[in-house]
This record gives sequence, structure tokens and C-alpha cells, in this order.
Amino acid sequence: MGNFEDYRNHVGARPDKFYKSTLFQGDMMMVGLNCLEPGQVQPVHDHADQDKVYVVLEGSGRFTVGDETQDAGEGMVIWAQAGVAHGVENVGSTRLSVLVCIAPPPR
Amino acid sequence: MGNFEDYRNHVGARPDKFYKSTLFQGDMMMVGLNCLEPGQVQPVHDHADQDKVYVVLEGSGRFTVGDETQDAGEGMVIWAQAGVAHGVENVGSTRLSVLVCIAPPPR
Repeated sequence: MGNFEDYRNHVGARPDKFYKSTLFQGDMMMVGLNCLEPGQVQPVHDHADQDKVYVVLEGSGRFTVGDETQDAGEGMVIWAQAGVAHGVENVGSTRLSVLVCIAPPPR
Repeated sequence: MGNFEDYRNHVGARPDKFYKSTLFQGDMMMVGLNCLEPGQVQPVHDHADQDKVYVVLEGSGRFTVGDETQDAGEGMVIWAQAGVAHGVENVGSTRLSVLVCIAPPPR
């Protein structure tokens, strides 16, 4: 695994559910890319012991964190602290690509 | 602290050294923005027990990770695993803004 990745090389699509790719994984953090085609959903869920951040790189999505729901496009950064429920739906007409960092990484 | 931040609201500049802003901080991860004006440098350093990732949001920089040095622009993601020396210099002519996630957060 190198230390330099272009997120565009990790973009992809699946017909049945949103697409995931891992860019980097260490002992303390995982960095991945999630791509949601129009209409695709990452259901609201939580990680009891992991902080997570989404960075919108292309497209836009309707993000839920706790009891707050907001549409967010490129340049928006969305925080889901450990234990706070979160999810996203692509309600737009183009692909949504979000970088995701989770700490500590999923085991 | 809200859960939705536009990184553009955290952009800034200092004449004497590069500019830092914290977007989010939890027990497991810190999310910040570093802005380097042309010519500014984040000297090579390491964090023995923290994984770190840079996400280039605007401009470009000359990043060093371990013994590798590469110029990286918007859309590039740069990984510095715990213990690996890393730094960045803005050798371009426009501001470099990089999102930074560090896990666990600086204490």
C-alpha cells in the first residue's frame, strides 16, 4: 500500500448497494471512499466506539446525524461522534462520492 | 459544535506560519483544516502513536511521507501512518487547503 492515493481511482458503482473502497488502514484509523448512485442509501446506523467523518468530494447527499438532517454538497464535512446515529441518502441526480475516516478502524 | 461544517468557512492565513483550524474533535479523532500560503511549510515531523491523513481540497503541495516526496493536488489523499515522518510545502502560487484527520486526537 502506497501513501498517495487519488480518490478518483477508488470511485465505483454497484447496482444493489452503495460502493465502498478502502484507501488506507492503520491501527488507529481507516480511510475509505463510499460512492452512492442516485437513489442509493446508507441506512442510519451507529458505531458505539468509533468517531467518523464524511468529506463530500463530488455530488451531494442528504445526511442525517443524530436528530439533524441536512443536504450537503462538495466541500462539506460531516461529523458523527461515537455513539451518534448517522447515514446518508443520495437524493440528487449524479453520483455522490464521500471520503470516510473511521477511528479506530473497523475490526 | 454542530455536525455540519463547510471547510471554506475554516480557510485562513497567517503571515508567520501556516494556518490551522479545528472542525471537530472527539475522543478518537480530530478533524482540522491546514492552510498554507505559497512558500509556507509544515516541517517534516512524526506522531509516534497517531495515524494521520491529509485530503487536498484546494491548491497543491509537495508532500513528504517517509522517504517519498510527491506533488499532490485537489482530490489526492495522503497517508502518514503512526511513526512515519511527514510534512508538506506549498511550492505553488495559490493557497493550499488540506483537511487533516488525526487519530487519536492530539491531547
